[in-house]
Amino acid sequence: MKPVAVRNIPRANPDTIAGLAGMGVATVHEAAGREGLLKPYIRPIYPGARIAGSAVTILTQPGDNWMIHVAIELCQPGDILVVACTADNTDGMFGDLLATSAKARGAAGVVTDTGVRDVRDLEAMGFPVWAREISSKGTVKNTLGSVNIPVVCAGQLVNPGDVVVADDDGVVVVRRQRADAVLEAGRKREANEEDKRQQLADGVLGLDIYEMRSRLEAEGLVYLDSLDELEQSQS
Amino acid sequence: MKPVAVRNIPRANPDTIAGLAGMGVATVHEAAGREGLLKPYIRPIYPGARIAGSAVTILTQPGDNWMIHVAIELCQPGDILVVACTADNTDGMFGDLLATSAKARGAAGVVTDTGVRDVRDLEAMGFPVWAREISSKGTVKNTLGSVNIPVVCAGQLVNPGDVVVADDDGVVVVRRQRADAVLEAGRKREANEEDKRQQLADGVLGLDIYEMRSRLEAEGLVYLDSLDELEQSQS
Amino acid sequence: MKPVAVRNIPRANPDTIAGLAGMGVATVHEAAGREGLLKPYIRPIYPGARIAGSAVTILTQPGDNWMIHVAIELCQPGDILVVACTADNTDGMFGDLLATSAKARGAAGVVTDTGVRDVRDLEAMGFPVWAREISSKGTVKNTLGSVNIPVVCAGQLVNPGDVVVADDDGVVVVRRQRADAVLEAGRKREANEEDKRQQLADGVLGLDIYEMRSRLEAEGLVYLDSLDELEQSQS
Amino acid sequence: MKPVAVRNIPRANPDTIAGLAGMGVATVHEAAGREGLLKPYIRPIYPGARIAGSAVTILTQPGDNWMIHVAIELCQPGDILVVACTADNTDGMFGDLLATSAKARGAAGVVTDTGVRDVRDLEAMGFPVWAREISSKGTVKNTLGSVNIPVVCAGQLVNPGDVVVADDDGVVVVRRQRADAVLEAGRKREANEEDKRQQLADGVLGLDIYEMRSRLEAEGLVYLDSLDELEQSQS
Amino acid sequence: MKPVAVRNIPRANPDTIAGLAGMGVATVHEAAGREGLLKPYIRPIYPGARIAGSAVTILTQPGDNWMIHVAIELCQPGDILVVACTADNTDGMFGDLLATSAKARGAAGVVTDTGVRDVRDLEAMGFPVWAREISSKGTVKNTLGSVNIPVVCAGQLVNPGDVVVADDDGVVVVRRQRADAVLEAGRKREANEEDKRQQLADGVLGLDIYEMRSRLEAEGLVYLDSLDELEQSQS
Amino acid sequence: MKPVAVRNIPRANPDTIAGLAGMGVATVHEAAGREGLLKPYIRPIYPGARIAGSAVTILTQPGDNWMIHVAIELCQPGDILVVACTADNTDGMFGDLLATSAKARGAAGVVTDTGVRDVRDLEAMGFPVWAREISSKGTVKNTLGSVNIPVVCAGQLVNPGDVVVADDDGVVVVRRQRADAVLEAGRKREANEEDKRQQLADGVLGLDIYEMRSRLEAEGLVYLDSLDELEQSQS
Repeated sequence: MKPVAVRNIPRANPDTIAGLAGMGVATVHEAAGREGLLKPYIRPIYPGARIAGSAVTILTQPGDNWMIHVAIELCQPGDILVVACTADNTDGMFGDLLATSAKARGAAGVVTDTGVRDVRDLEAMGFPVWAREISSKGTVKNTLGSVNIPVVCAGQLVNPGDVVVADDDGVVVVRRQRADAVLEAGRKREANEEDKRQQLADGVLGLDIYEMRSRLEAEGLVYLDSLDELEQSQS
Repeated sequence: MKPVAVRNIPRANPDTIAGLAGMGVATVHEAAGREGLLKPYIRPIYPGARIAGSAVTILTQPGDNWMIHVAIELCQPGDILVVACTADNTDGMFGDLLATSAKARGAAGVVTDTGVRDVRDLEAMGFPVWAREISSKGTVKNTLGSVNIPVVCAGQLVNPGDVVVADDDGVVVVRRQRADAVLEAGRKREANEEDKRQQLADGVLGLDIYEMRSRLEAEGLVYLDSLDELEQSQS
Repeated sequence: MKPVAVRNIPRANPDTIAGLAGMGVATVHEAAGREGLLKPYIRPIYPGARIAGSAVTILTQPGDNWMIHVAIELCQPGDILVVACTADNTDGMFGDLLATSAKARGAAGVVTDTGVRDVRDLEAMGFPVWAREISSKGTVKNTLGSVNIPVVCAGQLVNPGDVVVADDDGVVVVRRQRADAVLEAGRKREANEEDKRQQLADGVLGLDIYEMRSRLEAEGLVYLDSLDELEQSQS
Repeated sequence: MKPVAVRNIPRANPDTIAGLAGMGVATVHEAAGREGLLKPYIRPIYPGARIAGSAVTILTQPGDNWMIHVAIELCQPGDILVVACTADNTDGMFGDLLATSAKARGAAGVVTDTGVRDVRDLEAMGFPVWAREISSKGTVKNTLGSVNIPVVCAGQLVNPGDVVVADDDGVVVVRRQRADAVLEAGRKREANEEDKRQQLADGVLGLDIYEMRSRLEAEGLVYLDSLDELEQSQS
Repeated sequence: MKPVAVRNIPRANPDTIAGLAGMGVATVHEAAGREGLLKPYIRPIYPGARIAGSAVTILTQPGDNWMIHVAIELCQPGDILVVACTADNTDGMFGDLLATSAKARGAAGVVTDTGVRDVRDLEAMGFPVWAREISSKGTVKNTLGSVNIPVVCAGQLVNPGDVVVADDDGVVVVRRQRADAVLEAGRKREANEEDKRQQLADGVLGLDIYEMRSRLEAEGLVYLDSLDELEQSQS
Repeated sequence: MKPVAVRNIPRANPDTIAGLAGMGVATVHEAAGREGLLKPYIRPIYPGARIAGSAVTILTQPGDNWMIHVAIELCQPGDILVVACTADNTDGMFGDLLATSAKARGAAGVVTDTGVRDVRDLEAMGFPVWAREISSKGTVKNTLGSVNIPVVCAGQLVNPGDVVVADDDGVVVVRRQRADAVLEAGRKREANEEDKRQQLADGVLGLDIYEMRSRLEAEGLVYLDSLDELEQSQS
């Protein structure tokens, strides 16, 4: 593909994005129909951050972070930089200088399918990054990639403007067009879960709440009384 | 194997279990004759927890956490759920709802050769989990496995009722029948180590405490005075 | 190679070492011309430590930590033990007893291409370790290796007396002979970065600070105004 | 997402597909602008096969191959089944029975981001498969996925009807709409390469053919005459 | 555990073992109720071998193959050496000398959760090995392990005398006590499959043979006619 | 480090190199005192090749094969290109065009800690490559590295002019200065092994040839007569 940078991308409603941030990754992933979860090797560099934002996507070359500079100019406040690479690469493509710049432009954080460095500084400045590795390995600025094209990051397709949600559980991406529907589904799910959580906290079993006993029996689960019975059943 | 759930399992003496919890994984592993250590990819989701308990074992299918619901009913206070899977799988089989239920039934924690999710909530409720991965990926409840059969979890055979010890160093399993003997061996080891620790803190060398010098010489270790000598010895 | 232990090694100037410790891994790695970074699978067992010291190198056999005892005698205050192994191995070759001994002899920390155990105790005593894995698996003392020979640790050649710098970003090794030059280069870099950091914090773009726009254009980067334009450009 | 199966998909021109098959993966990948390469962990189960075909995409659940049965009905002669999974999974989702069925319906082969089994039989029947693992682990037919929706397989987005090319080098996917253009670009590339290959075979250097010497010098490459000079340059 | 070597172990009926060898791994694994499959990282060092035999189990220490010598004395013709290790280790614990010895004593092959070397020689002498890695790394004979105790090899419990079946698909272990029943189940399965294979070869769909259509509908699979419909259904 | 290319390197005696090639990797590794083995993830792209040659070393940047062009000019007949990279990278840095060029200049083969492509063509032209991955991913020629400097390739230090030996077992590097001594040690080892091989083939046990029985007893190995005894010994 020819290297391009797209200046303007559509974004979801800020209130929707804020609502999704509040829910967290696990709930949003469920509410989205279990779509959009990045592979679990993407981890936060420090615990406790929970953000959501519009994806500004970046396709980099291995060992080269040039395009991140291009992308920062195209960021709007609240956006999340989503960095993909044309090959598996753990180089530290993002560090304290780029974070200073991204933060100054209002970026909310970074999700990168590469390495990151200066993690102590990044935590000190409260700029959250989710990455596949922590590495001081420096990068060059020699080969073009693209900004704001669809990319695959950690096994998921991310389109420019999709909503990215990230917390201690990982990262999920929601198609921009579905963001409102997912928020609504998430709210229903939360309401629904609250009641179950209370019952479970009171000691009621999931077997009973979800009426699983008859299905377990129909599928053939056999209860035995002891390990002796188990041994007999296998000989 | 036919899917079964065994209701009653033998358990070790509660005092023995408490004693093993106090020792921690490294000491228990040594005291057990260096048996029973789960592979080190199993890590705690937050630092600082140290528990021991009787194993309630669960064999799950990939992407399916149905059997965990079955297992929670069979838990007794202080038990540890040990989740194995018929295939390598990192899905988030355990999260805040199941933790709420397990905690309400008195479970002390979970060791799972799969993923876990809602880690922020789990830390907040003080319910420790050791897992191979953190992942929001949801699971279904469609295919039977078994509860309280011998399973292989992270490379170790775990029988129902075996004692599981888990802390920041990882997870070790002790055969129920050997638990008392291991506790006793651990206490001797601790007493023995205390003296050595004091000597080492005073600057006495392990070479001298363990009388290694003659064996090193017998095996052929040669001391050289400088890197120059090293270079000469190699040409 | 015949197993040897070299008693005396050259060391860099203590002030130089202290200066490198203050800079941290990412800066030192850059100042060294991007040489000497250990692979990123080497991670600190607890956050926040930042040290530098002269490498006392150890070549161990898998499952055998005998040579670490030999090395501790040869340590001087401020040295860092650098443990390599003749095979990939994650056994817990270093734990609280060895740490007690190493600390008593003045060692500043450990970098090991193997496992480590007793991490809770090590954090409590403030003895930092960078390792490839946390594992309680014990080791034997049966097979000789060597101390203070050149080793490859996590993909990097480390000579006895080279300066090792370690922090939350990982570990970098600097040839002893180059340590002064690297410190000087690092100081220039820091001075140079400070100005850029301020500009970036003020919202000036890297594109402008580094004068990238003309090079981007020369290389062929095309700016598009919208995703619609992108779609048209690809059909 | 709701589980769906799309019956009819657009396909590229059969002559185009045949042309791409003849070129092989490396050339097609270059001709496509270095887009669309699946991660290299996807390997052929036996050497020597080289195919291209229209992608019939399948999204499966871990441990469950139900959707492959649904997909085989929707295959047309020459199609390639492309199997993705909602989680990393190495179960043997495809074996000799499914291969017999797929072959009877005219499928040209399978690319699967999961395991495969019966590899001896598959080679004997000449039905090529590219997979991430070989595993006898059986699967169930309990949970729905989808057929002929866009999927991410081994890190690449694959749309139904995209052209998949696979050989000993791996697998590349070409957007259906670009297939003709890629074929044309590949032919130009082949013609261009033939001349270079001949020159290279005659001993002409790439440095001269590609006129690299001046650029190397401009970038700062320094030629030294000996290792002694190298040592002097570094001290 | 104390190091022991058990001289005499029970073995399954030779005809049963021969029958299981003829079936191959995938069929035996199914016939055994999908139990006993070793993790798929265990691969044959050359294609085409298919064997079964009684397990002579060996627990080694990392980097040490001493116990294999002990085990060879305890082998009977047709046995398979099953090598486990107390830690993940890829050293070449088995090579042409040990293979010459094992073959002279009638061993049928080796399954090892470690490395193997001299693979060209082993193929030339027709002595099959399944291993996790190929590595020339030599081993020592310094630390005891055990022979003929239950071990976990590549994630599976293997008891001395259990039947091990290995081919191009991998390795499966069958409890000795169940071997006759598994053979019988396998024969039924083969007979049953033959009919299905013929139907599938004739182009009958699995959907019809296994009567899946109604269940697919009941579970909610929706057929769409085109990708346009798909797009509409998602917006 | 400044990018350099060293034109002239010392080489070992051609007869020595030929002798080492004949021995193969496992024997050379032993004869060298078990030094110099590259990590086992480096595998040949086709079976059966066995070569030795002088190392022309190349340090590349991730995704960039520019320096390989520089190196080919500096090759002499019989040399082996040894490719290291400043980061873990699996891109296909070497393919049929470069192989055509390297072969025309007399290179004997390639060992690369990166990916390789066009493997079918390379096998057809009989140009052997050992690599960490097979990948069609193309590379650029934008960033300088170095040629003929010491590099770490797959965990081993390789100096320019060191002797590299490669076969189906992997790759080993021998210091140039030690090549003659290693050849001689290897010949002694082969002579010594031949006698043992014959004895082993006649059914004599390693336990007796190597006189291990007394050492086993001294170390504490206990022979038991049956699994019943084993069970009793553990309770």
